[in-house]
Order: sequence, then structure tokens, then C-alpha cells
Amino acid sequence: MGPIAPLQKTLTASRDIDALHNLVDQDMARVNQIILDKAHSDVELIPKLAQHLIDSGGKRLRPMLTIAAAKLCEYQGAGHVTLAASVEFMHTATLLHDDVVDESEMRRGKTAARLLWGNEASVLVGDYLLGQAFKMMVEVGSLGALRVLSNAASVIAEGEVMQLAAAKNLATTEETYHAVINAKTAALFAAAAEVGAVIAERPETEALALHEFGRHLGLAFQLMDDVLDYSGERARLGKNVGDDFSEGKVTLPVILAHADGTPEEQAFWQRTIAEGDIQDGDLETAMTLIARHNALDRTMERALSHGERATRALDVFPDGPIKSALLDAVGFSISRAN
Amino acid sequence: MGPIAPLQKTLTASRDIDALHNLVDQDMARVNQIILDKAHSDVELIPKLAQHLIDSGGKRLRPMLTIAAAKLCEYQGAGHVTLAASVEFMHTATLLHDDVVDESEMRRGKTAARLLWGNEASVLVGDYLLGQAFKMMVEVGSLGALRVLSNAASVIAEGEVMQLAAAKNLATTEETYHAVINAKTAALFAAAAEVGAVIAERPETEALALHEFGRHLGLAFQLMDDVLDYSGERARLGKNVGDDFSEGKVTLPVILAHADGTPEEQAFWQRTIAEGDIQDGDLETAMTLIARHNALDRTMERALSHGERATRALDVFPDGPIKSALLDAVGFSISRAN
Repeated sequence: MGPIAPLQKTLTASRDIDALHNLVDQDMARVNQIILDKAHSDVELIPKLAQHLIDSGGKRLRPMLTIAAAKLCEYQGAGHVTLAASVEFMHTATLLHDDVVDESEMRRGKTAARLLWGNEASVLVGDYLLGQAFKMMVEVGSLGALRVLSNAASVIAEGEVMQLAAAKNLATTEETYHAVINAKTAALFAAAAEVGAVIAERPETEALALHEFGRHLGLAFQLMDDVLDYSGERARLGKNVGDDFSEGKVTLPVILAHADGTPEEQAFWQRTIAEGDIQDGDLETAMTLIARHNALDRTMERALSHGERATRALDVFPDGPIKSALLDAVGFSISRAN
Repeated sequence: MGPIAPLQKTLTASRDIDALHNLVDQDMARVNQIILDKAHSDVELIPKLAQHLIDSGGKRLRPMLTIAAAKLCEYQGAGHVTLAASVEFMHTATLLHDDVVDESEMRRGKTAARLLWGNEASVLVGDYLLGQAFKMMVEVGSLGALRVLSNAASVIAEGEVMQLAAAKNLATTEETYHAVINAKTAALFAAAAEVGAVIAERPETEALALHEFGRHLGLAFQLMDDVLDYSGERARLGKNVGDDFSEGKVTLPVILAHADGTPEEQAFWQRTIAEGDIQDGDLETAMTLIARHNALDRTMERALSHGERATRALDVFPDGPIKSALLDAVGFSISRAN
């Protein structure tokens, strides 16, 4: 993992998000309360299933982005809290539908909801959370914010369908993969940040800057996720690796290792990823092949490059504690080893 | 089917929706164009799957309701056309997700999309259509209409989850069943009609009247659907019956026949509906038991009662061709034999 240290310095000195947490903590407590309230329904199954996913935590990066962006834009109202909660609901709904599509067995370290309550419930409770997200945004009453978030909802679904078409397909190019993660992951990060400027009625340049900040942060975040799933370091720490491999996901490390592989190596990827015939020791072989072609380092280089572009996007804003905390969050997303 | 004829007269003399069609035809042509345009995406699978469902037709009752309600309220703009298209997209998305949940094999007389492209694609393309629906509503720019439709989106999903909990459960009461169809079917009819008044900025009383008109029309429509699925007349015409039965749906005819059944009859419902053990001749037996307890006539009585309440809801509007066409649509929904 050679290139990380030098490039890292150009981004930010800090690698944690403590500063961001401190700045948004009060508002995030209100976001969490709204999330709990709006996940309620008299239809018993809904709060049960939603609670399962909410309790299992997650980093709440997306709603934090909305809160921080609104603060960066000196927004004085209360609408950012509701928008942040609706962003998290959109994300939660996507996770529920994703797990059904990917036939995932785990989510955030817990048994996936679909295995506990069935695929049907996951589809429908996801729809409910989307409906609630939509209702909450309407309550805020900003047509501009509604425009940004409704557009993201379409783009995310488009990205998911693209990913479905690319699934288990080793002919997926880096370009196609980029388009997929740009839509399915980065679009919500972008929208989450952009609405902070929109609700504060700031000029278009600032909205666009936050959009680009969120988008590149999301791309960096997703690429690092792809890296972590094949990380030898994580495996040594006893953490989960290999989920993408066992689900046959064609992520960038696989695309790069496959493209540069010998015919024998390509046959390995064909059997495991494309045909889903995975045997004992295959994950180790996959990690060896990925290392042989420097595919993790090369994926991290892309992540770092997006981190740098996220950082530069904030140039339009004056320096200050919130901007600095957002830049730390970029460093965190790229350096996180857990 | 005794009680239909006398009650029918109190509703309306006409049983068809030709008048409604004629009044909304021009606008509906524009709705259809928007539907075609907005189902487009560069992601190939999306227009393919959406087209499959759009091509298979359907009566487009919900968007017609929006157009007619806007006309009844003398709305002069163009927003009703976009809202009508978004209502149809909400409905189409629900159908896609429904088919996954119900494991349906047919939809509108064609192979269900999920069997052609997989459950995954149906879930995700449904999400895309919901996202597009949401975007279109935002384009129209009426926060009032957004409020009505986003609320409906939540309620519909809640109804679907309630239905899931009631599935194959013969202990479902008529009251619970009413709550399910009120949410999963009637809420969209209600919202589709209400937004016509909202976008025309008419007084609350008219919005509420159209809401109630749509809601009762939706309830009548759903109850007649339940009747038609066990209709001997339809079976004689060679039309499809028994889908609800084979999917184990606990609809009102089953609830009524089961409640009044002998222990032997209840054991039949237990084996077929609750346990899904359906053998040759069981549908015929089900139809016989339902007839024995007058369960179709009793369900139709409920439908007629809702039809009458829908009719009365329009009392706040002066008589005229649009009101009269809407009343005909009530008669059509209740008397339709196909």
C-alpha cells in the first residue's frame, strides 16, 4: 500500500472525523430523533424492521454531510435537520432493496433484514421509508431541495439497474464501473451536500461546489470500500472481508486484476466471479492475484485522486472550522482501515 | 347477483366510461406521451421493462381521475397532465413491487416482468419509476400536490405491508381487510382526484370532496376486483379467474365465506388459502362455497355502498358534463364484468 502516505499529506493532516462529529453533534441528535419518530407506523412490521437497520448503526455520513454543508453555508433555520433525516431514509431504503437484489446475508454486521422478515418485507418497508423520506422533504417546503433529492432518487435507481446489468460480468470496463458508482453511491453524497447550500439559498456556485465535494467524496468512499473488502490488513485484524467476492461483485480491484491477468488467472475470475463456483481457498487466491497486479494500490490511487478533487471543490468557501472538519472527513474516508 | 340491478339505478344510468374518455382524451394523449418519455433511460433494461408494463395497457383510471378532477375544478394550467403521469408511474411502480411480493406470474394478461427480467430488475425499475414520479411532481412546483402525493406514497406502502401481514391469514377480519384496501388501493385513487382541486387552488372543501370521491371509488373498484376473481360469469366467458385463490389472497369473498362456513368448509379454506395446498377442482369448490354464503353478492353490496358514497361526495360540485362523466365512471367500476 505504498502510495497512500505521500498522497495523504496533500489532503489533510487529520484522519478522523471527530471534529466533524463535534460540530454536528447537537443537530445529529435531532436527526436521530426524527429518524426514530418517522420510522414509526401502526403496522407492526415496519418499525420492527426499520429499527433493526437503524439500531445496527452505520456511520450516518450522509446526514452529517447535509448538516455540515448547511452550517458551512450559514443556514439559520431548522429544515436541514429534516432534510438530513430524509437523506438517511433514502439511504436506508436503498440498503433494504440492495440486500434483496444482492441476496446479501449480512448488513452492518447483523443478519440482513430480508433473512429475518423475508424479501417481501424488505421491498415494502424500503418503499415505506422512501415514502416517508419524500414526505419529510415536502414538509421542509424547499422546492430547490426537492429538485436535488428527487433527481438523486432517480439517478440512484438507475445506478442500481446498471450495476445489475454489470453483475458477474467480467467484461465491465473501468469506465462503466465508474458510471455505476457515480450513480448508485456518489449521487446521494452529492445531493446530501448540495441541499445544504440550496436550503440556505446560497448562490449556484456554492451549491455546485458542495455537489462536487459530495460526489468526489462518495466516489472515494466507495472505492475505499472496494479496497477494504480485499484487504489483507483487515483479514489479519479478524474483520470481515470477501463479501464482494462471494456475491460475485465486479468491483475495481477485480476489473484491474482481471484485465492484466494471464489466461489462467482470467479463468479463475471466470469460474469464481462470473460463474459463482467458489471453493475453499479461492478468496486467498483472489487476494494474491489482486496484490500481484497492484490492484488495491491502483484503486486507492483513484480514491485519493477523488479525495483531492473533493478537497479542491471547497476552495470557493473561506477557511474555517466547518470547512476544515469536512476536509478531515475526506481524509478519514480514504484512510479508514476499518 | 340479485341486488346489483336495483342499487345500480340509484348510482347512475350509464355503465360505461365513454363520456369520461371523450372529455379527457386530448389531455390523456399528452399524459401518455410523458409516460413514454419519462420511462426512458440510457440504462437499457429500464425502458425495456417499463415498456412491457406500459404496452400491456391497463385502464389508466388513476391519471384519468386527475385530469377529470382538474377539469371539474376549472384548472387552466398544464400541471395536471404531469401530475397525472406521475400518478400512473406511482401505480406502475407499485405493480412491479407487488408482483415480486405476491410471486405473481401474470400481470395485465402478460407474463409478469419479474419472470422475464428477474425480481431484482422489478424492484429496481420500480424504484426508478418512483423516483421519476417524484421528479415530475416536483417539476410541477405545487407544494400542496406534493404533500398529497407523498402522503399517498407512504400510506400505500403501509397498506402493502399490512396486506403482507394478513396474507394467507384466515383470521383477517373484514375491518382489517377494509383498512388494507383503504391504504393500498383507495389512497392513490383519493390522491389522484384530490390533486386536481389542489393544483387548481380550490377551497379545502372541494379538495376533501374529491379525496372522498376517489377513496370510495377506489374501495368500490377493489371490492369489484375481488368479486370478479371468483366470478362464474367470467369463467364462462373464458376469462381468467382464480388468481387471488391461487396466490392465497384473503379477500372479502373468502373472509365472508370462511366466517360463515361449517367446520368442514373452514378446513377447506385452511388447506387451500392458508397452507397453499391447492388441487384440481379446488377453485370450483371455492366458488361453490362462496356462492353458498352469498359472499359475492355481499361483497358487491359493499362495493355499491362505496359507489353511492363516492357519488354523494360530488354533491358540492354543480352539475355538468364532467361531473356526470365522473359519476358514470363510478357506475362502470361497479358494473364492469370484464
